[in-house]
Amino acid sequence: MNKLPTEMTVIAIRASGGPEVLVPERRGMPAPGPGEILVRVRASGVNRPDVMQRKGLYPPPPGASDIPGLEIAGEVAALGAEATRWQPGDRVAALVSGGGYAEYSLAHASHALPVPEGLSWVEAAAMPETFFTVWHNVFERGALRPGETLLVHGGSSGIGTTAIQFAKAMGARVIVTAGSEAKCAACIRLGADHAINYATTDFVAATKAATTGAGANVILDMIGGDYIARNYEAAAPDGRIVQIAFQQGAKATVDFMRLMLKRLTHTGSTLRSRSVADKAAIARAIEDTILPLVRAGAIRPVIDSTFTLAEAAAAHARMETSHHIGKIVLSVP
Amino acid sequence: MNKLPTEMTVIAIRASGGPEVLVPERRGMPAPGPGEILVRVRASGVNRPDVMQRKGLYPPPPGASDIPGLEIAGEVAALGAEATRWQPGDRVAALVSGGGYAEYSLAHASHALPVPEGLSWVEAAAMPETFFTVWHNVFERGALRPGETLLVHGGSSGIGTTAIQFAKAMGARVIVTAGSEAKCAACIRLGADHAINYATTDFVAATKAATTGAGANVILDMIGGDYIARNYEAAAPDGRIVQIAFQQGAKATVDFMRLMLKRLTHTGSTLRSRSVADKAAIARAIEDTILPLVRAGAIRPVIDSTFTLAEAAAAHARMETSHHIGKIVLSVP
Repeated sequence: MNKLPTEMTVIAIRASGGPEVLVPERRGMPAPGPGEILVRVRASGVNRPDVMQRKGLYPPPPGASDIPGLEIAGEVAALGAEATRWQPGDRVAALVSGGGYAEYSLAHASHALPVPEGLSWVEAAAMPETFFTVWHNVFERGALRPGETLLVHGGSSGIGTTAIQFAKAMGARVIVTAGSEAKCAACIRLGADHAINYATTDFVAATKAATTGAGANVILDMIGGDYIARNYEAAAPDGRIVQIAFQQGAKATVDFMRLMLKRLTHTGSTLRSRSVADKAAIARAIEDTILPLVRAGAIRPVIDSTFTLAEAAAAHARMETSHHIGKIVLSVP
Repeated sequence: MNKLPTEMTVIAIRASGGPEVLVPERRGMPAPGPGEILVRVRASGVNRPDVMQRKGLYPPPPGASDIPGLEIAGEVAALGAEATRWQPGDRVAALVSGGGYAEYSLAHASHALPVPEGLSWVEAAAMPETFFTVWHNVFERGALRPGETLLVHGGSSGIGTTAIQFAKAMGARVIVTAGSEAKCAACIRLGADHAINYATTDFVAATKAATTGAGANVILDMIGGDYIARNYEAAAPDGRIVQIAFQQGAKATVDFMRLMLKRLTHTGSTLRSRSVADKAAIARAIEDTILPLVRAGAIRPVIDSTFTLAEAAAAHARMETSHHIGKIVLSVP
């Protein structure tokens, strides 16, 4: 390893606002604390919470960096005390609590995954947020089993494209909703059994029709609003509905009789607020269960587009069009 | 066994209406089908669904008897094919899909429990509905663990008094809500750690105060209405809310952000609609886990009052006062 520089370039949020508030800044090099690693970032994933944070709607949690960016891939550059798993130079993809839009970033050693052979830095950086989110919510929380049907709203998003691949690899059927014929076609190419264009088709009726009336066993929802009551309709008896965001609002009027009579389970979670130990447990499960499937070629992150770190504003503008299919990633020179 | 009579006395619902529509009738003796037993009923529990059915608001499911009554205790009088577990004369307490207000009643052999030594017929008949409901919803669905806190709404009801005893026997803390000081005192005598008089005290604040701010890990709710949003407030992170009825209505406007941020699980179930196999599995779990605690004296059904079969109307009138503490049971001469 070369000697570390004392400063690095980051993308900071100058003030709350549009993409143009994302500006390069020079910052001091962070030092890894106990259990942490310092990573020389080669690529950094862009996520909707970054956009919310930029707009001032999602302040970073106490103790987290003010720099946006929740996932990175790169080489281990320095080790904190007790970070014994990794060696300098190891190729890792890590979930971080902020600070990913930077040349260097701190991560908990237990929140880093080894980068599978054959994956580019950009592909590796596209893994952590959607892998942790989909694994925990669909399989741990939603308990999707082989032979069951998963309904994914937003099938062409980063979360959606990951959910399609995970669920198919695990032997489940997958139905997705998406907002255009092109997005529906992309989902089918990725392995989805059925894609519903929500702009033209009611997803409740279409889900029932695609399951001979039974409904979906697990529903992964980031929409909320009137989708909540409609999810209760589209779910099979004993179905599980897992809420990971509320793009159409979290307040809704619902008839809970459906939930009781169909014995539904409505739950949800957010990743960023989880404890260090919880995230480490999810990372271990992914390493055991999902990374072998990545190595075998059954799962591969879907990349919509790549921008350089300096082009972070353009990356955000792209995300806000909602035209993307798969992940938007910053490559860090 | 004596030869079976060809007719029996039952309590029928003459027409939808008040308690006075419950009238004695003579009916032909039912014959047990495959897997069924015929029970000479000695006592029959009274439940809120019986009252709903009497009012015409809860029609019996297809194939079920039109006679009210969902739980019985008595001696096995005859066996259907494949009902090999029991012998004539065995003392059983059974969940039935209807027809309990009668001298004889059919039950699935797999839905019957042996009556523990020392329990009266009235006590035995008070077990099935609340035991099956509380076991499945609090422990199987809600996954209450030792050291966790259970909040039970309606702590002095049949369900409530059973939930208090089960949860305490399993090493959990119990908070209840009830509508009077007398009911609160009865819950405390039964072992509840904390009783909240909902007529005078906000249960959300009181639950937080009783758990040093943490909230309840499992909430058993039969109220619904505005309790749903309040349950989301009163629940601890990762809490489970289990809905078994909606005495104040099933439609509610809720902020589901709470559910996601606290990683709550909202679920529910009704017993009567479950499959024969599901009810049999619950019966086996109760026999393994709860009946030993009944034999050991740690759990005993709480009886509010006993009426004869002919006094079924008076029993319903008593239930509709909501003054009862524990179960109302018909004794069948």
